[in-house]
Amino acid sequence: MPTRALASLYIRVDGRAILLDCGEGTQIGIMRLGWGFRCIDSLLLTHFHADHCSGVPGFLLALAKAGREEPFHIYGPYGLQRVIDGLRVIAPQLPYSIILHELPSTESSFSSIGLDIRSFPLQHGIPCLGYSFHLNRMPEFDPSKAKKLNIPVDLWKVLQHGTPVTVNGSIIQPSEVQKGPRKGISFVYASDTRPVDTIISNGLNSDLMILEGMYGEDNKLPLAVKNHHMLYRESALLAKEAQTSRLILTHFSTSMETPEESLPNASEVFSPTECATDGMIVSLAFPQS
Amino acid sequence: MPTRALASLYIRVDGRAILLDCGEGTQIGIMRLGWGFRCIDSLLLTHFHADHCSGVPGFLLALAKAGREEPFHIYGPYGLQRVIDGLRVIAPQLPYSIILHELPSTESSFSSIGLDIRSFPLQHGIPCLGYSFHLNRMPEFDPSKAKKLNIPVDLWKVLQHGTPVTVNGSIIQPSEVQKGPRKGISFVYASDTRPVDTIISNGLNSDLMILEGMYGEDNKLPLAVKNHHMLYRESALLAKEAQTSRLILTHFSTSMETPEESLPNASEVFSPTECATDGMIVSLAFPQS
Repeated sequence: MPTRALASLYIRVDGRAILLDCGEGTQIGIMRLGWGFRCIDSLLLTHFHADHCSGVPGFLLALAKAGREEPFHIYGPYGLQRVIDGLRVIAPQLPYSIILHELPSTESSFSSIGLDIRSFPLQHGIPCLGYSFHLNRMPEFDPSKAKKLNIPVDLWKVLQHGTPVTVNGSIIQPSEVQKGPRKGISFVYASDTRPVDTIISNGLNSDLMILEGMYGEDNKLPLAVKNHHMLYRESALLAKEAQTSRLILTHFSTSMETPEESLPNASEVFSPTECATDGMIVSLAFPQS
Repeated sequence: MPTRALASLYIRVDGRAILLDCGEGTQIGIMRLGWGFRCIDSLLLTHFHADHCSGVPGFLLALAKAGREEPFHIYGPYGLQRVIDGLRVIAPQLPYSIILHELPSTESSFSSIGLDIRSFPLQHGIPCLGYSFHLNRMPEFDPSKAKKLNIPVDLWKVLQHGTPVTVNGSIIQPSEVQKGPRKGISFVYASDTRPVDTIISNGLNSDLMILEGMYGEDNKLPLAVKNHHMLYRESALLAKEAQTSRLILTHFSTSMETPEESLPNASEVFSPTECATDGMIVSLAFPQS
């Protein structure tokens, strides 16, 4: 729409990035954001409806223009090779290689930019995947344990960075001088789909869930069922079940001019719900503890 | 660019339309224009670089959403079938049929929405076509000739609309009651290319030429030659040679933030030159005579 971009997510961790979905015009959103193209190592596609991947050829050419020469990874459901081959008819020559990862229709795991990523099946009439992202946090260093093991203070930093050290001929593992495990950061992206349990199980106790808000009004349920999409209320119920900290709705029907108008239908089920807006930036930090 | 759309031309005649080139985001420009999708009968593609056709899948789906059921025509140079087949991997099912017209690398003619259209070869390193458009004007009706032939006044309107009539057993052709031929409207679109004579011959005495203005500054000539594009000055020289009425430059390099800055390099060669802007509307009318 002239007033609203297609849904997409740019994930940045320590200067490296992942793009999730790339419809027509997503590259303009990236330019506006100003976070760059060259640092994007992977593209994750949820499914192959045009509003989620029509911007791929232009995006691949923008990566080339930005000077990328390192291999680029594209993840997506069944059919990935056929779709990328088709779209690349207008982007045949690129100065970097593309590594395709066709993901199974069951749950699967992989890593990119330091994130543990899990893909899981959604229910949209064609193969469609949700993704959950996990940034693990190293347990806190415990000086009292280090002292007890007589580790010289100048080796503490090495252990704090996760590297074993040798003291008096014995190898000391970082885990020997750490406090208990600490919660990392996790978030989920799931669109387009009917409500399914995989969204709850993958979003359990997460910091953020980004779910589709295709239809704001409850009376659109028959349309939602027919088109394999979700109501605001259905997404909010999933977020509540998953006990996530926060829900952001996105992927609004073009029939809704102001998605915020229907927000009460979600927030009366799950209070910390917002509607995404073009260029919205959300920062997730490790909890202070 | 966030501040400038890809070059495209929406041609409207008596409520029917043609789209020329369709890069990423062109459908947003059409929405902003408000002239509709369903009335577009043909898409003309100049060539298959992504900035001229990456918006095709989204555009075809927008036509479907607008309710089109009539066959839709796509014209383009050698490779059309392969490119449209590739791009349609994400728009496989449409409620209308698509008729592809792969045009030869020599000059050729066809018609759409009442326009006589001629395609002609450009020089861009890959097959690339320019297009000239001609709206013919019927000669003026000559009442004195009609009187001389004793045609009843109530049949004049029929002849004025170009239909023969029968008077006293003889068929009278419209041409028998017309004054001399009248100039119609003609205009040309040519991008991306080095300067070639076909642009001049197809633009001869035209009302408007729309030519690329890839590089504004004369010192970019080596780059223009290398990338098969034109300087402002080169386009202006073609317009001057063709003795057209008016030149509009478009398809500006992303390296130029304000294309108007270099306009003097064109207008000192051919004074009636302008730079295209997003959403620019130009009306061409038959001359009053």
